[in-house]
Amino acid sequence: MSAEAQTEKTIAFVLYPGLTVFDLVGPLQVISRLAETHPEISPVVVGERIEPMATDAGVEVLPNKTFAEVPHPYAFVVPGGAQPTLRAMSDPVIRAYIRGAAETADVVASVCSGALILAAVGLLDGRQATTHWAVEKILESYGATYQRKRWVEDGKFIMSAGVSAGIDMGLQLAARLTDEATARQVQLSLDYDPQPPFGRLDYGEMGLPLRARRAFAALGAPLLTALPKRLTQQNR
Amino acid sequence: MSAEAQTEKTIAFVLYPGLTVFDLVGPLQVISRLAETHPEISPVVVGERIEPMATDAGVEVLPNKTFAEVPHPYAFVVPGGAQPTLRAMSDPVIRAYIRGAAETADVVASVCSGALILAAVGLLDGRQATTHWAVEKILESYGATYQRKRWVEDGKFIMSAGVSAGIDMGLQLAARLTDEATARQVQLSLDYDPQPPFGRLDYGEMGLPLRARRAFAALGAPLLTALPKRLTQQNR
Repeated sequence: MSAEAQTEKTIAFVLYPGLTVFDLVGPLQVISRLAETHPEISPVVVGERIEPMATDAGVEVLPNKTFAEVPHPYAFVVPGGAQPTLRAMSDPVIRAYIRGAAETADVVASVCSGALILAAVGLLDGRQATTHWAVEKILESYGATYQRKRWVEDGKFIMSAGVSAGIDMGLQLAARLTDEATARQVQLSLDYDPQPPFGRLDYGEMGLPLRARRAFAALGAPLLTALPKRLTQQNR
Repeated sequence: MSAEAQTEKTIAFVLYPGLTVFDLVGPLQVISRLAETHPEISPVVVGERIEPMATDAGVEVLPNKTFAEVPHPYAFVVPGGAQPTLRAMSDPVIRAYIRGAAETADVVASVCSGALILAAVGLLDGRQATTHWAVEKILESYGATYQRKRWVEDGKFIMSAGVSAGIDMGLQLAARLTDEATARQVQLSLDYDPQPPFGRLDYGEMGLPLRARRAFAALGAPLLTALPKRLTQQNR
């Protein structure tokens, strides 16, 4: 690292009620570890208000700052979730924050169905993108081209597949903010040498198209009325 | 599943100030997803008091219940951390909770340096165990035999290696609570098909013994005075 003063790079993690807590914590832990050796990198968890917020796993989390306090982060990360994420897609406060922050951010990131929120404010139209396998059709209904990859980069956007893919995306983002050797140090610190006890996922074998349709249906018809017509006609 | 009434199985996740939030959230998310299809499984985050608690990643988390409200869970999981975990090892409230809960629990689990808290109350003496690579010597000073494995089971104990290994351990625990096919459904829901962007860790190549000594030294001499003499003499 050079001895020059480094410009602070704020990395905002966007909270909303009911999100999947793992989507938040995967990349947050990666960037927090990175910040320990790179003080110019400043992770911050942002929400509409500083108050305990429900997650999908029972535990409540508290943001560090409000959206109003961090209007223009260097980068921001949007976690996903189930129905609460669909709700967030049409929440005017969330939409305004994402849209405003995206205008000036150098990096815009999402985990899992967080990509749907980016898509819902028009940021992914015409872009390569990814999301959780269960909601690929919703993503595509907004003009994005879904790729079944662990993460996808398109310009200033970087998006991960479902939930745990946020770790892999986080390490890629860490390398983008510093370099690969540094990202590997973070990986070592997190002991990230994954060994799923029952092996890798075989998406083909697991009847994914059928599962995706079921998962989509389970999201609830009332919420879908807010979605683009092409999509809802196709799936209901 | 049988139509009979199932006995509720409470799985408690133990909070203490400054813990590594990923250590908590990895297995918590796994067990929460499991609970969606297995209502007899009831994850709950427990702490000394119901108040926001600092983590190592800035974000604060709120327990659902106090230790006093969940004295005898079916299973409990102890997350790890850096200095705050060493402090927790000698915290009388944490020690009393772990000791009391372990007496009656069917499953006692730890993530990362959380194993040190189990060890510090005498639960791992003579047992096979694992923890984060940086603190293996502390673990062994309490009479446990360290294994460099992703997770280790010994009787009712199941312990994972560092931080992210809590996901793998969580899936193994999910299979123990139900069956392998069910654990694989959770894995699919979490899209857990990990692809670290820069490959797997090569612990040998990364000069681990030296790193471990440095990490150990970084934990701070004052805290080490509370540790067994054999260990501190060897390392200071």
